Amino acid sequence: MAAAQFARATEQGTAVDHADYTSRLAQTRQRIADAGLDGLLIASQYNRRYLTGFTATDHDITESAGLALVTRGTFGLITSTFALNGVEDELTASGVRALLMDNDTLVNVLARALRDEGGVKKLGFEKDWMSYAAYARLHDGLGEVIEFVPTDDLIELVRARKDEAEIATMRRAADIANRAFALLLKDIRVGMTEREIAARLDRHMVELGAAEPSFDTIVACGPGGAQPHWVPSDRPAQAGEPLLIDFGCRVDGYCSDLTRTVVIGEPDAKLRAVYDVVRRAQDAGLAALRAGKRRGSEVDAAAREVITEAGYGKEFMHSLGHGVGLAVHEAPAVSRVRVSTPEAEAEMARIGRIEPGAVVTNEPGIYLTGWGGVRLEDMILVGERDAEVLTDRNPEQIISIAG
Amino acid sequence: MAAAQFARATEQGTAVDHADYTSRLAQTRQRIADAGLDGLLIASQYNRRYLTGFTATDHDITESAGLALVTRGTFGLITSTFALNGVEDELTASGVRALLMDNDTLVNVLARALRDEGGVKKLGFEKDWMSYAAYARLHDGLGEVIEFVPTDDLIELVRARKDEAEIATMRRAADIANRAFALLLKDIRVGMTEREIAARLDRHMVELGAAEPSFDTIVACGPGGAQPHWVPSDRPAQAGEPLLIDFGCRVDGYCSDLTRTVVIGEPDAKLRAVYDVVRRAQDAGLAALRAGKRRGSEVDAAAREVITEAGYGKEFMHSLGHGVGLAVHEAPAVSRVRVSTPEAEAEMARIGRIEPGAVVTNEPGIYLTGWGGVRLEDMILVGERDAEVLTDRNPEQIISIAG
Repeated sequence: MAAAQFARATEQGTAVDHADYTSRLAQTRQRIADAGLDGLLIASQYNRRYLTGFTATDHDITESAGLALVTRGTFGLITSTFALNGVEDELTASGVRALLMDNDTLVNVLARALRDEGGVKKLGFEKDWMSYAAYARLHDGLGEVIEFVPTDDLIELVRARKDEAEIATMRRAADIANRAFALLLKDIRVGMTEREIAARLDRHMVELGAAEPSFDTIVACGPGGAQPHWVPSDRPAQAGEPLLIDFGCRVDGYCSDLTRTVVIGEPDAKLRAVYDVVRRAQDAGLAALRAGKRRGSEVDAAAREVITEAGYGKEFMHSLGHGVGLAVHEAPAVSRVRVSTPEAEAEMARIGRIEPGAVVTNEPGIYLTGWGGVRLEDMILVGERDAEVLTDRNPEQIISIAG
Repeated sequence: MAAAQFARATEQGTAVDHADYTSRLAQTRQRIADAGLDGLLIASQYNRRYLTGFTATDHDITESAGLALVTRGTFGLITSTFALNGVEDELTASGVRALLMDNDTLVNVLARALRDEGGVKKLGFEKDWMSYAAYARLHDGLGEVIEFVPTDDLIELVRARKDEAEIATMRRAADIANRAFALLLKDIRVGMTEREIAARLDRHMVELGAAEPSFDTIVACGPGGAQPHWVPSDRPAQAGEPLLIDFGCRVDGYCSDLTRTVVIGEPDAKLRAVYDVVRRAQDAGLAALRAGKRRGSEVDAAAREVITEAGYGKEFMHSLGHGVGLAVHEAPAVSRVRVSTPEAEAEMARIGRIEPGAVVTNEPGIYLTGWGGVRLEDMILVGERDAEVLTDRNPEQIISIAG
């Protein structure tokens, strides 16, 4: 990123320079042409940042900080002074042009940009990231001159293959998370609440240089762990129960994402056994990647088979993994097709291919109502012929904390 | 909320009981009928929680934890074991029925529910909260038997009028934020970074009993404040510059939202003058509410006029305020129509009415490139004949910290 007037955070990844942005834009334009389109309107905040360098985040779908516009002749960021004032320098490295809509509507600003360029008839839009309302406004305003075409994952598939700067930054995000967790292990005591444990881990990550946690840290002591996305509560940690911690941090926008399950004191036979199944499933997932399996469904199946054979198939109710990068969850999918429909199969064919340069998670889990959960998650960089675990590997046996 | 198996957080608002949920559902059904619809599919996570009690949050628009379905005969939550496992008790007080789509598609689960009931021909969907892709899947799958009708703000307008339990909880969220800020003032010293100040404030709020900050806390020392949604950086605070802090916390899902601008040491004449303009604008907004102005555009205009007359009209580039509740930003709008179009005017007529029971912010600001920003934000409960400031009032003169 271009040197800012002053640093925006300690987050220091490897800089994305003009050449990186030029390459990203060229690949995007190629995919737009391949899809038979004249341009693309970009609603995803991740795709917007990837192409333009604009770091603003969208509070939710109803509050967008802007749309990027890519056609043959235009590379623009449709935004407002409200969002851009004071951070204009973020756009320098990518060279994107700000198209301000302070005193005008999105439809009018877009219409003017397209009229100035001419020749844009079919304009794609990101169907998963644009609300029906936003689509309808565009269609009502410009539908007579522009055909708006819903698109799938065009830029997501460019993002799926990380470049060198991205990989260096993600190594740093993984490393900070690893070190923060090592510090946390020294902190945990019987009686600390889930919320206290989460707060300590978050603080360690920030103090080690992360911008922020990459998502709300999950800490589940015992029963809460049966809910894979448990929100930390005031329940105090007790000895002997599974203590599931799912966390990660953001460095220059890029996420790490890992999960460890530990225990205070000694694990009983059940916890040891469940942990062992999950760990063997994780090994199977990693082995599949290392053996060159490149379909996400194959890798998922390799791990799932271990859990199913152990009798816990129904208790592993999520995907084995997902890509990770600017978004916590992104392409490729490391997943089965849950319910087979033509659309779901087509989606998996599109985003379930694990190409070299992908960073994916490998995170089998078993969730038992009333007891808790065991999930083990590592981050893996997929190479031409290998697969490198970026995080510390989850150990073969559950970590026992003196507590 | 129904007593949980164990507390999910220290956050303790006033309980929402079965009678509250019954009233919310009845009002929603009335609005559905008034809109000429047979039912509504609810995509907003805030509306979902408001009706069902389900506290899951959506990571983003592509990752929904579920949709609520309200028709004459059905009150359902379409979700999955992945999202519901371990938190089933959250649904007890509202009595909503879980419709699991573990082994089926949304389209099939919805089709079955509607077939079981019969008679549903026109089904509304929340156009601002549903992606085009999700709409297209519904339309492709069921469009021959169901007419999907985009709806505006049906439940948002129910939520805009807070009931007693909600007001009690929001008082608590405002009180915690007030007390946390008082503690923060004792912490701030020259040389502390924006990120350090934000982290301390967040910690105070959580230690005082909040579940979490209600949004990413904004701390801007000097120039960063020219960007209204500045992300805290490692810039150290310096004496004499405007130090803008926008923050709030969540209690039982309900948000507080307030902004203070202070200074370390003595303010210079410019800072005193800008602060004075913003404070007088805030007084004008409050006076308009107290005088019984009930259109958001009138209240916005009253405050904006003060800033415009002082010569800073262009430097106040956002709305005067917004409703606050389960969402940080919700109805009613306390805003001008930025660009007049028939659609924008219709939207303002719909959501720009400040009814008794509304909680709104009053937050004028002035943003000067290279210098910084001054924003003063309070939360106001609008009554039948009055307007009560729930937060501590921003003082008449800028707070000077010894630092």
